[in-house]
Amino acid sequence: MAKEPKPLDDLFHDTLKDIYFAEKKILATLPKMAKAARNQELKAAFEKHRVETEGQVERLEEVFGIIHKKPQGKTCAAILGITDEGAEIMEDYKGSPALDAGLIAAAQAVEHYEISRYGTLRTWAEELGLNDAVPLLQETLDEEEATDEALTEIAKTAVNQEAEAA
Amino acid sequence: MAKEPKPLDDLFHDTLKDIYFAEKKILATLPKMAKAARNQELKAAFEKHRVETEGQVERLEEVFGIIHKKPQGKTCAAILGITDEGAEIMEDYKGSPALDAGLIAAAQAVEHYEISRYGTLRTWAEELGLNDAVPLLQETLDEEEATDEALTEIAKTAVNQEAEAA
Repeated sequence: MAKEPKPLDDLFHDTLKDIYFAEKKILATLPKMAKAARNQELKAAFEKHRVETEGQVERLEEVFGIIHKKPQGKTCAAILGITDEGAEIMEDYKGSPALDAGLIAAAQAVEHYEISRYGTLRTWAEELGLNDAVPLLQETLDEEEATDEALTEIAKTAVNQEAEAA
Repeated sequence: MAKEPKPLDDLFHDTLKDIYFAEKKILATLPKMAKAARNQELKAAFEKHRVETEGQVERLEEVFGIIHKKPQGKTCAAILGITDEGAEIMEDYKGSPALDAGLIAAAQAVEHYEISRYGTLRTWAEELGLNDAVPLLQETLDEEEATDEALTEIAKTAVNQEAEAA
């Protein structure tokens, strides 16, 4: 036990690297989901969120700047597991009327991971007095929550009814 | 492409197996988190949620019964990734005043995964006319949301202040 215990600002930095890696992975995944989606409203929602995600990556880079660190990712096992499950659904439900329902479920699992991470980072930024970081993290958190709600609406209206009627 | 496309009731069943596996994994993980937690309120929250999780597993078994299937898990890469990250934090922040903050973050990532899955399953149960499954899934969803909120409260009050003051 020669290691120094790591304080909350280290945990903030580690978690920032975790979500930075996750956002890059999501940026690479969203075009595949948009391409796979059958429902036009869903396709548009994925495309809109890809553009938003680019802005979220930039905000994270600003937060790295606020704590005087270089933007850097750290392998995030959680997002890899979540997106692997999404890829499995895309494969297993290819050509099925339930594909879009599965894509929405996969995307909402991603959104909820992000909601938990940004909620945590925002709370820690407040505790650490990183006042410039708080609104940046809050803005992204609001976007993730809005995306999650938009997906719920699409699921309730178009997509599941299509899957059920097929 | 000789495979038959799989419909929404297959997706419901697959996702039920996914969350059943996840709940069993969470049941095995919560005692470790309760043991690691320093703050008594947090320790108690993990213990309370372990008891709740036992009830959630039973409710899932009822839902399997409603669709005339045997309760069975299916490896859930997402929960394995999320809990691996939690284990890494427990290791990296052992002896640190930030440990409890890290445990809360890990637990909230788990809760949000569950919230997304139960929200999805509840919506699909409605679409599929599985009327007896809807209240069971809703009850667990309500518990997961309440647990997430309770953890946010603990994070805002005791835990982060301890981490910051250290």
